[in-house]
Amino acid sequence: MRGKVDLAEKFASFTEHWTPKIVGEMNGQFVKLAKLKGEFVWHRHQDEDEMFLVTKGRLKIRLRDRDDVELGPGEFFVVPKGVEHSPIADDEVHVVLLEPKSTAHTGNTDSEMTVPTEHQEWI
Amino acid sequence: MRGKVDLAEKFASFTEHWTPKIVGEMNGQFVKLAKLKGEFVWHRHQDEDEMFLVTKGRLKIRLRDRDDVELGPGEFFVVPKGVEHSPIADDEVHVVLLEPKSTAHTGNTDSEMTVPTEHQEWI
Repeated sequence: MRGKVDLAEKFASFTEHWTPKIVGEMNGQFVKLAKLKGEFVWHRHQDEDEMFLVTKGRLKIRLRDRDDVELGPGEFFVVPKGVEHSPIADDEVHVVLLEPKSTAHTGNTDSEMTVPTEHQEWI
Repeated sequence: MRGKVDLAEKFASFTEHWTPKIVGEMNGQFVKLAKLKGEFVWHRHQDEDEMFLVTKGRLKIRLRDRDDVELGPGEFFVVPKGVEHSPIADDEVHVVLLEPKSTAHTGNTDSEMTVPTEHQEWI
């Protein structure tokens, strides 16, 4: 059984942007931490909802054909399966992600930002 | 599609203890908020992992035949399926729970503290 996780301690252990790190697992889903800065590629996850919980900074999530969602610390949003989205962080954002283990980083979009699922690591 | 959720605003909207409120849904799981104070019944969830993320206060999770886990703000722990546990909060604790929609409040234990799944409400 894994021990408890201190989010602040885990966030302090890496500096890269757009490279989700796995910190927990439950019911076939991973809990991941990511630091975001700049603009991510538009993509969607055909079969998977994705939850974004911001712990630091302000994150804009652009949604195709819908209003943007802006999240500050202590706010979360679930991007439903199939909805094309693109996160943007003007300044660095820390985010907790929850998504099925099978979820590809950039969904249906292959990009130089893509980190293959098999290369995502536990920290 | 549901909008974003501000955890602080949702926590401010209720006062009861040990009555989880649903605030989000993703991949067959609910995101719930609960305020805890005092001692909960020992129980387990045979088929479901349960994630506890503390946002306020200090929560002790007793685990049968294992060391207790103590969580402060920004710390989480996943109680694996089948593991008997009992949360204790000396002072009020705010916690974000993630668990499958099917998860019964007190697991295998029927208690006067039990809130039947069909009575758990969205806020």
